[in-house]
Amino acid sequence: MSAVKDVLDHVDAGIDKGLERLFELVRIPSISTDPSHASDVRRAAEWLAADLRSMGFDANLRETEGHPMVVGHGPKTDGPHVLFYGHYDVQPADPLELWDTDPFEPVLRPQPDGETHIVGRGASDDKGALMTFVEACRAFIDVRGSLPLNVSFLFEGEEESGSGSLAGFLEKTAEELRCDAVLVCDTDMWDRDTPAVTTMLRGLVGQELTITCADRDLHSGMFGNAARNAGQVLGDVIASLRGENGSVLIDGFYDGVEDLDPAIAELWAELPFDEEAFLTDIGLHIPAGETGRTILEQVWARPTCEINGIWSGYTEPGFKTVIPAKAHAKISFRLVAGQDPEKIRAAFQRHVRDQLPDDCDVTFADHGLSPATSMPTDGAFMQATLKALSEEWETKAAIAGTGGSIPIIGEFERRLGTNALLVGFGRFDNRIHSPNEKYDLSSYHKGTRSWVRILHALAHAN
Amino acid sequence: MSAVKDVLDHVDAGIDKGLERLFELVRIPSISTDPSHASDVRRAAEWLAADLRSMGFDANLRETEGHPMVVGHGPKTDGPHVLFYGHYDVQPADPLELWDTDPFEPVLRPQPDGETHIVGRGASDDKGALMTFVEACRAFIDVRGSLPLNVSFLFEGEEESGSGSLAGFLEKTAEELRCDAVLVCDTDMWDRDTPAVTTMLRGLVGQELTITCADRDLHSGMFGNAARNAGQVLGDVIASLRGENGSVLIDGFYDGVEDLDPAIAELWAELPFDEEAFLTDIGLHIPAGETGRTILEQVWARPTCEINGIWSGYTEPGFKTVIPAKAHAKISFRLVAGQDPEKIRAAFQRHVRDQLPDDCDVTFADHGLSPATSMPTDGAFMQATLKALSEEWETKAAIAGTGGSIPIIGEFERRLGTNALLVGFGRFDNRIHSPNEKYDLSSYHKGTRSWVRILHALAHAN
Repeated sequence: MSAVKDVLDHVDAGIDKGLERLFELVRIPSISTDPSHASDVRRAAEWLAADLRSMGFDANLRETEGHPMVVGHGPKTDGPHVLFYGHYDVQPADPLELWDTDPFEPVLRPQPDGETHIVGRGASDDKGALMTFVEACRAFIDVRGSLPLNVSFLFEGEEESGSGSLAGFLEKTAEELRCDAVLVCDTDMWDRDTPAVTTMLRGLVGQELTITCADRDLHSGMFGNAARNAGQVLGDVIASLRGENGSVLIDGFYDGVEDLDPAIAELWAELPFDEEAFLTDIGLHIPAGETGRTILEQVWARPTCEINGIWSGYTEPGFKTVIPAKAHAKISFRLVAGQDPEKIRAAFQRHVRDQLPDDCDVTFADHGLSPATSMPTDGAFMQATLKALSEEWETKAAIAGTGGSIPIIGEFERRLGTNALLVGFGRFDNRIHSPNEKYDLSSYHKGTRSWVRILHALAHAN
Repeated sequence: MSAVKDVLDHVDAGIDKGLERLFELVRIPSISTDPSHASDVRRAAEWLAADLRSMGFDANLRETEGHPMVVGHGPKTDGPHVLFYGHYDVQPADPLELWDTDPFEPVLRPQPDGETHIVGRGASDDKGALMTFVEACRAFIDVRGSLPLNVSFLFEGEEESGSGSLAGFLEKTAEELRCDAVLVCDTDMWDRDTPAVTTMLRGLVGQELTITCADRDLHSGMFGNAARNAGQVLGDVIASLRGENGSVLIDGFYDGVEDLDPAIAELWAELPFDEEAFLTDIGLHIPAGETGRTILEQVWARPTCEINGIWSGYTEPGFKTVIPAKAHAKISFRLVAGQDPEKIRAAFQRHVRDQLPDDCDVTFADHGLSPATSMPTDGAFMQATLKALSEEWETKAAIAGTGGSIPIIGEFERRLGTNALLVGFGRFDNRIHSPNEKYDLSSYHKGTRSWVRILHALAHAN
């Protein structure tokens, strides 16, 4: 029988109340990238601080130049000290018309396979995920009056918009936030039944560019052919980024990128992963990345160059025969080990400038700049976590890579000198950043139970 | 002394009141392409019908499936019968932030060179232009109690959005609108001092395309590289349209297009046209069209392919690391003699489909489909018009080409069996379709005076 059966039973009995709390948080449209939602972002921070205080934490908001941080410290106790990091901001919900329900009015939707989906923006990323840890702490306090080890919280409100304030904040509060391990819940399980600790993350370079040709929009009948068209120039630039074989054509882009270690390639080849199903599930059937590399390699181990948004000229209903003077694009790169984000940014900007006719101009704005990171897999905390996860899910936990980026993981290492443990209960089909984002009820419930076991295991590690 | 000195003097004395009437019309935001402005479009039609009635015309609105037509007939008199065509709809005013003043609150702005600009959307295209003819008629009626010939009006409210109802309307009302000449005022002067009759117009094919890749927007960390990016595909499509030498790469695009007649080339070479000034005036210095062809040839005699608008993915402030499932573009072609609009449309759609990966799809919507037209330059009406213009401007009137399209000109020929006479007082720098559109006060004033002379000349032609 588990040493934390009393706490686990309490989690089971209180799942409905736990869901109500998550719903309250999801209802707050804390879209960090959209200035018009700034007060909603703050409201989500205040909700979390109040919730932590209700559990006996010393918790409050800390102002930054962007959105506020939430910092909370539990009552001092014996044992090691963990810092839990999560983010309370969410991605924009557009395109709204593709949602089946209001993104900020979460609902439970029972599924034919017996699962129940919690549907709403942030239900998974990261509100549902971070609340699994909060609920685990609450269960300990409810049942035993205390936590089995020292727990602090750091909640950020700018993760979806580049974490602009985090590095400076960690630098300033390094003493206060010093800990033995950073716990993060923002990743996926290996599959529906297999829990995972993620140890490889890609870096991110986000760039917004504005190309300017003529000094005003022009009439295509009077100036067509003769005047450079900014939409055409942007198309030429975009086409120049990727070759027919799917590789990125920016000079020096793959410098320092090593081919996949054959041992890891072998390990990944054994994983239950269906390339065809991966594509058909999203309505496609032809892999778009570098030819000759598996999809897992493409999404976990190879750097990307993706167009995230483009706009130019007349985009309203109807037609306007205009030659646009300006064209815009948001373009991002996922980086792997060996790539220097600043060098990639410089190479990209040089590449774009090289494509432009001499009488056109381009400006760039930064939206994120972080290197890839990988965490060591030995260590007592890691081993204790894997064991606790394996017990809860009754199957051996996996050590996984991910194609995503959590830029702040590297910051914890640099600013606090502490490695992060990335445990997540998300599933591959959660549609994070997409319409109809969902979190499985079993992710929420067994995720909370998993943290109960992990907290107990970490308290007794070493 | 002119035979119409009394009428011209009346125009001079009444210019302020004429401006007030134009301002009233410009204040109505009759943007035909934007459904939210439908009632404004109708309001502009009603304003014109009421103005014609105040001059003794039998004028009213005629419903269509789109915006209404305004038809007006003056009192029967001796002499030939002319039909004046103009359009009372305007282009959208965006981007609004680039206007120095409210686009729908016209203002007079005196210039350093002594000219005065009438600034507002439609001040030139086509409200200012059509009112020159209305004011000329009013002056005759005010001074002499009658017009020197039979005058009918046809005002359209869909010219800026493809003239969808016009062909059918002309077909239906051919008997009622039968006339000896169609007069149109929607073109430019040769230069500030030289009036012009335009005898060559390009055709237009407008296409809106939507590319669909995945069945939803995707997270670039989870699907980047592997999943096709619609923004990337659109960029590839756009880049495939034009070669490095500026030529259009669609298969068969130049079929039937003849090189410029050496005699016309020689004539154009003698025209006072400064290629460098043409480009520097719009902030550019490198011609973008086919290498080896002059700018006048590029904009008057060569077909175009221009990107009018593109959009895909996240285009709001901030950043969203999304792989867009869809990408959109509005693309138009100006056609010259020898090009069949239906063949061009088919060739374009085939070209786009050929660029797409097999698991992506594209749909097209039509926004205009008309061939190029050219008018004969002999004939008594043409000669009378050139003579009247030369008298008013005290310099020989030019016979000019234009890069623009007035698709309905061909319709008049087909449906009514009548050629059009295109007389315009616009200037090259009027910024039609752009922010800060203007019409010179001298265009308005001397344009009205020109029509007085032309009406008199046409009444005595033959």
